[in-house]
Amino acid sequence: MSEKKESIGLVETKYFTFAASPDALVLESGEKLGPITQAYETYGTLNREKSNAVLVLHAFSGDAHAAGFHEGDDKPGWWNDMIGPGKAFDTQKYFVISSNVLGGCKGSTGPASINPKTQKPYALDFPIITIADMVKAQKQLVDFLGIDRLLAVAGGSMGGMQALQWFVSYPEKVRSVIPIATAMKHSPQQIAFDEVGRQAIMADPAWNKGSYYDSGQPDRGLAVARMVGHITYMSDESMEEKFSRKLKKDGYTFSFDADFEVEGYLRYRGDNFVKRFDANSYLYITKAMDYFDVSGAKLAKTGGKPEARFLVLSFKSDWLYPSAQSKELVLQLKAKQADVTYCEIFSTYGHDAFLLEVEAESKLIGHFLENILNGRKKTNAI
Amino acid sequence: MSEKKESIGLVETKYFTFAASPDALVLESGEKLGPITQAYETYGTLNREKSNAVLVLHAFSGDAHAAGFHEGDDKPGWWNDMIGPGKAFDTQKYFVISSNVLGGCKGSTGPASINPKTQKPYALDFPIITIADMVKAQKQLVDFLGIDRLLAVAGGSMGGMQALQWFVSYPEKVRSVIPIATAMKHSPQQIAFDEVGRQAIMADPAWNKGSYYDSGQPDRGLAVARMVGHITYMSDESMEEKFSRKLKKDGYTFSFDADFEVEGYLRYRGDNFVKRFDANSYLYITKAMDYFDVSGAKLAKTGGKPEARFLVLSFKSDWLYPSAQSKELVLQLKAKQADVTYCEIFSTYGHDAFLLEVEAESKLIGHFLENILNGRKKTNAI
Repeated sequence: MSEKKESIGLVETKYFTFAASPDALVLESGEKLGPITQAYETYGTLNREKSNAVLVLHAFSGDAHAAGFHEGDDKPGWWNDMIGPGKAFDTQKYFVISSNVLGGCKGSTGPASINPKTQKPYALDFPIITIADMVKAQKQLVDFLGIDRLLAVAGGSMGGMQALQWFVSYPEKVRSVIPIATAMKHSPQQIAFDEVGRQAIMADPAWNKGSYYDSGQPDRGLAVARMVGHITYMSDESMEEKFSRKLKKDGYTFSFDADFEVEGYLRYRGDNFVKRFDANSYLYITKAMDYFDVSGAKLAKTGGKPEARFLVLSFKSDWLYPSAQSKELVLQLKAKQADVTYCEIFSTYGHDAFLLEVEAESKLIGHFLENILNGRKKTNAI
Repeated sequence: MSEKKESIGLVETKYFTFAASPDALVLESGEKLGPITQAYETYGTLNREKSNAVLVLHAFSGDAHAAGFHEGDDKPGWWNDMIGPGKAFDTQKYFVISSNVLGGCKGSTGPASINPKTQKPYALDFPIITIADMVKAQKQLVDFLGIDRLLAVAGGSMGGMQALQWFVSYPEKVRSVIPIATAMKHSPQQIAFDEVGRQAIMADPAWNKGSYYDSGQPDRGLAVARMVGHITYMSDESMEEKFSRKLKKDGYTFSFDADFEVEGYLRYRGDNFVKRFDANSYLYITKAMDYFDVSGAKLAKTGGKPEARFLVLSFKSDWLYPSAQSKELVLQLKAKQADVTYCEIFSTYGHDAFLLEVEAESKLIGHFLENILNGRKKTNAI
């Protein structure tokens, strides 16, 4: 399988646990949480100077498995096309770190994890977390890996929010920031779509106020939430290209079965999602996105020109995180005299483009990272 | 209350029942239905020549009560700003008819009606209906009112679909057609949004495969469906203007309560909708919209230049029924040499604009109708 050859090959998820006591990490809400496990993967080799580390940050439903293959799996990690030898995040040059977010359900501590105080899953006793809390936990992992300063933080969608939050929380720890298809804050429309997803989950009696870990999760509600999500990830145009009004059968069924291929696709995507995602994590993570706001004065607490350099990317047909939001980010960064490169990439894929427009992204990110690496080397040279 | 003075005043919903035997009306599916009741209202006076009748067609969740006030009600009909003395549909000149669609739940026969064969509500035994079936039932009402030819058929959203269907089914019966914020067929994205609404309803255990008329309807699922709808009816811009990121309280609640005003609005709208709408009607009517397709050769079965004149209206910020769909309609009508006037009205209201942009619509529709009335008079003059 040629794809496997080009990939980083077999990889494993690792686990780092910190904040051993139950109140070790103070969250933005004031609540305390511990112990905390971060599931993570690394690709490539950390150089002697520890100056080539790139932290890649996943979107809403992603996980630590960004590249390569897990033993026995046919499918590679979610950004495999971007991370590997000779790729945008070139593992021959960079040490790439990817971790599952706090509040998630893919190995990092979240609402489905065991609450040490009760020895049962947290469920809704899990505290509300924010993007800043996710980043605070990532910082512990980066410290543990012995990295003082990251060459870059990069991610699409919620991954881009985390990248921005890294710059806001730890400006001295990031040499460059690559926010892709993201925003400084959710618009009311983005909040509304998240809220509909949450309401769909909470409307399902199986949700049971979050306590469903013995009885089975709210599959139907979670599937509906995911269907709404999928509509927002695609564009009107990409749906037209992929489905148009194609029927599953020769004619209308005159029933409430799925007549159109797009209906079948949504049902399939919804049903599949519930097998791999925890409904409570859906609630916690969307809430974190809705709370996120690094606009205005919050974007850079320290005065003066930011040291970090920025590559901001957005996609023409993305209506969930429209280019206008990226342009507003660029404007606010420029107002602080930041070094910003902005590109709006042509694509018909909608928000999904950040996972699919590999060629355009690879060139832009590849060159940008090399400049950061080389630029910094020059500055540091004797 | 000055609004009451300007309105048509007190009105009543009337009921017309036809197709007395249980298989009197043959539907597009081949199924038969009867008896059928059409709830309707009329405003203004039919002239001696019966040449001033305008059929106004409602959108998805509308009803026959388009204008004026019902005894004891504070709120007027859904298009009260457009129908009345001196208004766009001037009741001093025109005889305006409005009827609730077949399959609805506001007085016309629908899934909540009693099935004469079982003496219980039809529920899912109600046959799948199409926009053509709705129009076929309306035709019976128009015949009953003694009107051979309508001066105009007009409506927004699904009302526009019905207007187009009138032209397709009964081209000789309509002198003019006013399709507003509508489409010749749903795109896959529009189908997808409808399907999500249907899935939200069917995911609710209270739906019980449609048989809930004794046990209470699937309130939670129906509310979620409506919330999705409301997002699509507004624009990103109108949500920003109305809600921005305004909070309900002083700060974040760090809970899954509604933090943002937009969340509270959606919840309120969802909860309110379930009090006035039948979940099964939601399923049937959205399916009818998804099946609708009068594009291409279907738009005019008869060859030659259509006699009917068209006024096509769309709104700048409407992303649910984007202007591109209206432009495609205009293109296809023009290709058949139809007499078409098209206007894209500037608005930030999104799809809701067809209910709100009264001033622009009134001028355009008012002049258009007068031209039709006068033009035809000239032609018919001795």
